[in-house]
Amino acid sequence: MSKKEIRVALIGHQFMGIAHSNAFRNVTMWTDLPAKIILKCICANDSLDNLNEFAARYGWEECETDWRKVVARDDIDLISIATPNYLHKEIAVEAAKSGKHILCEKPLANDLYEAKEMLRAVSEAGVKHCCGYSYRFTPSLALARQLVEEGRIGRIFHVFVRYAQDWITDPDFGMVWRFDKKIAGSGPLGDLSAHSIDATRFVTGLKFKEVTGNLQTLIKERPLDSNNPDGPKGKVTVDDVAQFLVNFEGGATGCFESTRLATGRKNYNTIEVNGEKGSIVWNFEEQNYLMFYDNTLSPEEAGFRKINVTHDVHPYNGGWWPQGHGIGYADSFVIEVAEFIRSIVEDMPFNPDFEDGVKCQEVLEAIGQSAETRGWVTI
Amino acid sequence: MSKKEIRVALIGHQFMGIAHSNAFRNVTMWTDLPAKIILKCICANDSLDNLNEFAARYGWEECETDWRKVVARDDIDLISIATPNYLHKEIAVEAAKSGKHILCEKPLANDLYEAKEMLRAVSEAGVKHCCGYSYRFTPSLALARQLVEEGRIGRIFHVFVRYAQDWITDPDFGMVWRFDKKIAGSGPLGDLSAHSIDATRFVTGLKFKEVTGNLQTLIKERPLDSNNPDGPKGKVTVDDVAQFLVNFEGGATGCFESTRLATGRKNYNTIEVNGEKGSIVWNFEEQNYLMFYDNTLSPEEAGFRKINVTHDVHPYNGGWWPQGHGIGYADSFVIEVAEFIRSIVEDMPFNPDFEDGVKCQEVLEAIGQSAETRGWVTI
Amino acid sequence: MSKKEIRVALIGHQFMGIAHSNAFRNVTMWTDLPAKIILKCICANDSLDNLNEFAARYGWEECETDWRKVVARDDIDLISIATPNYLHKEIAVEAAKSGKHILCEKPLANDLYEAKEMLRAVSEAGVKHCCGYSYRFTPSLALARQLVEEGRIGRIFHVFVRYAQDWITDPDFGMVWRFDKKIAGSGPLGDLSAHSIDATRFVTGLKFKEVTGNLQTLIKERPLDSNNPDGPKGKVTVDDVAQFLVNFEGGATGCFESTRLATGRKNYNTIEVNGEKGSIVWNFEEQNYLMFYDNTLSPEEAGFRKINVTHDVHPYNGGWWPQGHGIGYADSFVIEVAEFIRSIVEDMPFNPDFEDGVKCQEVLEAIGQSAETRGWVTI
Amino acid sequence: MSKKEIRVALIGHQFMGIAHSNAFRNVTMWTDLPAKIILKCICANDSLDNLNEFAARYGWEECETDWRKVVARDDIDLISIATPNYLHKEIAVEAAKSGKHILCEKPLANDLYEAKEMLRAVSEAGVKHCCGYSYRFTPSLALARQLVEEGRIGRIFHVFVRYAQDWITDPDFGMVWRFDKKIAGSGPLGDLSAHSIDATRFVTGLKFKEVTGNLQTLIKERPLDSNNPDGPKGKVTVDDVAQFLVNFEGGATGCFESTRLATGRKNYNTIEVNGEKGSIVWNFEEQNYLMFYDNTLSPEEAGFRKINVTHDVHPYNGGWWPQGHGIGYADSFVIEVAEFIRSIVEDMPFNPDFEDGVKCQEVLEAIGQSAETRGWVTI
Repeated sequence: MSKKEIRVALIGHQFMGIAHSNAFRNVTMWTDLPAKIILKCICANDSLDNLNEFAARYGWEECETDWRKVVARDDIDLISIATPNYLHKEIAVEAAKSGKHILCEKPLANDLYEAKEMLRAVSEAGVKHCCGYSYRFTPSLALARQLVEEGRIGRIFHVFVRYAQDWITDPDFGMVWRFDKKIAGSGPLGDLSAHSIDATRFVTGLKFKEVTGNLQTLIKERPLDSNNPDGPKGKVTVDDVAQFLVNFEGGATGCFESTRLATGRKNYNTIEVNGEKGSIVWNFEEQNYLMFYDNTLSPEEAGFRKINVTHDVHPYNGGWWPQGHGIGYADSFVIEVAEFIRSIVEDMPFNPDFEDGVKCQEVLEAIGQSAETRGWVTI
Repeated sequence: MSKKEIRVALIGHQFMGIAHSNAFRNVTMWTDLPAKIILKCICANDSLDNLNEFAARYGWEECETDWRKVVARDDIDLISIATPNYLHKEIAVEAAKSGKHILCEKPLANDLYEAKEMLRAVSEAGVKHCCGYSYRFTPSLALARQLVEEGRIGRIFHVFVRYAQDWITDPDFGMVWRFDKKIAGSGPLGDLSAHSIDATRFVTGLKFKEVTGNLQTLIKERPLDSNNPDGPKGKVTVDDVAQFLVNFEGGATGCFESTRLATGRKNYNTIEVNGEKGSIVWNFEEQNYLMFYDNTLSPEEAGFRKINVTHDVHPYNGGWWPQGHGIGYADSFVIEVAEFIRSIVEDMPFNPDFEDGVKCQEVLEAIGQSAETRGWVTI
Repeated sequence: MSKKEIRVALIGHQFMGIAHSNAFRNVTMWTDLPAKIILKCICANDSLDNLNEFAARYGWEECETDWRKVVARDDIDLISIATPNYLHKEIAVEAAKSGKHILCEKPLANDLYEAKEMLRAVSEAGVKHCCGYSYRFTPSLALARQLVEEGRIGRIFHVFVRYAQDWITDPDFGMVWRFDKKIAGSGPLGDLSAHSIDATRFVTGLKFKEVTGNLQTLIKERPLDSNNPDGPKGKVTVDDVAQFLVNFEGGATGCFESTRLATGRKNYNTIEVNGEKGSIVWNFEEQNYLMFYDNTLSPEEAGFRKINVTHDVHPYNGGWWPQGHGIGYADSFVIEVAEFIRSIVEDMPFNPDFEDGVKCQEVLEAIGQSAETRGWVTI
Repeated sequence: MSKKEIRVALIGHQFMGIAHSNAFRNVTMWTDLPAKIILKCICANDSLDNLNEFAARYGWEECETDWRKVVARDDIDLISIATPNYLHKEIAVEAAKSGKHILCEKPLANDLYEAKEMLRAVSEAGVKHCCGYSYRFTPSLALARQLVEEGRIGRIFHVFVRYAQDWITDPDFGMVWRFDKKIAGSGPLGDLSAHSIDATRFVTGLKFKEVTGNLQTLIKERPLDSNNPDGPKGKVTVDDVAQFLVNFEGGATGCFESTRLATGRKNYNTIEVNGEKGSIVWNFEEQNYLMFYDNTLSPEEAGFRKINVTHDVHPYNGGWWPQGHGIGYADSFVIEVAEFIRSIVEDMPFNPDFEDGVKCQEVLEAIGQSAETRGWVTI
């Protein structure tokens, strides 16, 4: 009846800030949640006018510009961090000290040291923590994991993983903060491969043993001003393509690439898992489907089947609608928030947590190191 | 600053009621709208407890059980009708008399006579009216229309249209109101082909001249209680497959089918348009894409291209997210509501309106008649 | 050791003549056949120079220009008819009288009367007869039939069938014999829908009960000379789009279209079969695959599966190569010839025979009649 | 008129021997060739009975068991080598010394040293030489190259290449010679990646600069007898998955995998090329198509287009048949042989030649070395 209240503050109001806002605003509409969600406060480094407009649009009660004040407030239960990566650590550590539950966007931090510090902070504080690998909450990827867990794939031979976008193929596309290593940490490696690494861990349960990586910056400088392509240029200090080979514990192998230069690929976040009993192919661009090959069938009738993962029996009910009426990008954030809040209210384990964030960071770190030493690096 | 307020009442709280609720609740979050939307009241034939729960969940301020009271209220500007079809006419006529703008779910009515009466009522009242052919507001179908309008398809030879579902292939699936002609009017004909007819009109601009139809009920009776398949049975009085051939004004032809017995097809709402200069293939199950064949290219390089309709330059910005981050089923309702409210506030023309509803009903009526007379019927 | 010899004469040397030549020439290379094939004679209405060149190229021992001489020769066992349709009847009847086995291209004849006369002739003569519905011999379509026969599809609800090409979308494409009703009999109806009707009979076993059809000529005249599009024009006397609805014995329905104006569709010969237990989708443009949906699986894991029909366990071994190394257009003719010759040598039943040709012709005839009377016609 | 005669001897009569036989036997049927092909002699290490049967089936005039005799014969112009790899070198060198033109299956040899010796031999002898990278002769892959050459792809950023099969996923699949390093040289590396490397060179023109590779044997031993899985086992001495990263001259990168353990992938030979102006995706399992993304189009209408490469205007006329009537696996060998023979008769340059074979071998060698040293190796 009188449901527990969860009072949320969101820090950051760009792309991820919007995705989080929608999720907190609508989570009790789409799911049965044992809690009432209060959108207490939005905080960002912006003018109050802009913040007020944002708050009105997405339903936040108040605005703040200083995250330190926000994490210290007594009337907040949950801090949602959607800032640039380099701020994650400081905010999370402070929030943990203040006893707040934390949802932090991925990658958890810009380096492994920070990530581990964050994990230590939330562990010591005893708060709930979520690292925002939202793709885990697409029903189709969750079904992939389920099939593996049920033994339908059997011994896994290898994974073949690509996350490809094409938004910077134009060399006149100008400098943005994402091309600055100090702020962004890395290019597609941390932005995209982080998702691929987590998806691999999530779906297969495989443990990364060693990697060899290749990070390349193919477009080495860009105009400081997109509107003046012939004007002064800045140096791109992050990769725009990241590749790595993996040997997992137990012998399986992996082949990974992420890139922002794959002309024609929009948000082509894919993973293929090949095992003795079956195979899985997942592609976020067609997120309402999962491809599954059941090798236990006679070769006469075996084939990759395209499962429309929108039925009630599917993970997370396959979304909110009757079968065939698929969900969109925003919906996995809603599911993520629902599951995280449920774990808070019911004091249940939750993944992906900061430990998952650390595990992913370990792999990213090893890849970066390998790209420099040009050899295999053990994780 | 002080935006115009649009106070909404929703009548009906099933599948469509939820889709409408989400749209009204979130439309100002996803779009820039010159209005403030007030979710004034939800009305349905249910217990107050259930209605209160619905209202709380979706954000409606009040509940009502008597639609006549609702349409008469002075503090309502817009009535959204999401009831079973047989109630559309009476509600809409009363709402129009009370000067309310009306969004009515499709098909507009259970027969042409009612539909025309509804059109007359809104025309006389001078209110804005929308017939809820929501698929028009998927960016991909809107792009299809745009390509036709830009002359990219050229003279249209024919359309090939199928809307297929499979939720009643099990003969033990029990009787529901949708199988009762008195309440539902028809089976897939009115439920699904209505969408196909509207999509054809929307995309191609073709005018239906004559049709010949075939309506069949393949599973003629069903258990009254799904849980007791061997118990007493009821008679299915609507079609479960509807087929018709069309000659359009000007010579193009059409071939249509809708069915609820297409095993494996979940919400396979499709249309193919073949013209002298190009072709289009649209399939709602992959709503973030449109297939386009440009016949003006050399055959060396011509091919059906799969356009990811999620870029800013696409209709309705291709949705709310960066390219490749597709939208879901609920989103076209948001766009529909945004466009309808904009037409109210700015007093601009709007389609699909009740006249579009009538035009569709004329075709449905002719098909029904043709199925009985077993000959061609002129529209 | 001393295998039986089958001495073949081919009449006709255009498109189908080449397909037949390849099949007879190579059949013993690709299949184990209890016979030795002698390519005795090619006969066509052409210069001896051209015929000699054709013979040399495809391996025929001799040339003839008068088919009457050929069918009368004692040293011929099998007549393969690949002429324009209007010649089928006379040649087949004479060949039957001379005791020759006959492979005749489809459609069997230009009208039902002729088709029946042909059937009578071969029946009376006691010779083996094949009507060249070659698509039956693609391993994928054969697998479709097998799945139906094994009960994997269950009760069939409906078929949805389209055969679409686009080679005459250009209105300046000039007159050819195929646009002349006297020679060609009909347009896509006899050329393409004939295949669709046979494929439906083959795969489903359904019996056509009644049809209603629509035949349209959308491009009504064409330049007599393609190179002079502004020059004199001729009248197109055949359909360029054919549509028909079908009620089968026992209640299933069908929706069919064939056209030469489906821009972008090259040889899009497709059939979808929806049944209570499963569905099948076949598309010749991807002939090495069959789509199959198994409705007896849990909805959690059911999906259209794309079966690569190239494994040894598939019909006709899935072709000649290891799995994944698909076959091409010519190969189904090889299989057809192999099966037909085997039936001759082993005196076994063979389908599709002239009776299958007659059955198809009955449907074509009814469609043509329906298109004129504009009502349903019983078969 | 009196065409030049090319007298062919084939050495080897397994899988590739059959593909070559068909090509030589039928090349003048499918193509206009300025030569008459005489299938003089088949030679293999088998009984004369078996060889005679093979000769009769595929049309060879004579049989031999000693290849040394064959290459020394005066009445042979062209030696086609389809033996296991370890025999390539000796046969080719002898054949070259005897002044024979040589078509040798890929990979050219089991190691780089042998490959270079072969190249030296043919160069010194002044004979024509072909290394059988037959996929170059699929019209679709040839179109890919053509698009690159025409500048339609622009600066190439990266290639993403996978050749995946699944015929040994069953651990009870027994030992065959292909698992013995001494005979086979390597596993999928030489068998499959060799094709990928050549396809990359052919399509993109990129030069391999350095590689880092990972070769793994996931199923380390197999029953000596497939029919007795619990019986004695043998050790697999070749890789069953091969992965490598590449930096090309000029900065592009590549990510490659080949495997025989990709459950569900039958002959999934694929290459994706992403460039500034466009992208290409090719997949042999759908060899009659090429996917092409034209990045110079507006994002509004850009999309991967599926080009049906079967039109007369396509490379090699898109095959022998009208558009949409695709070719099969065997056909690229026919085209390869046609082109090679034309180069002999007209004394024109030909690729892929032994130098292409050597270039590929250099990359294979570097990958093998890298897998051992676990670092990058320069080519």
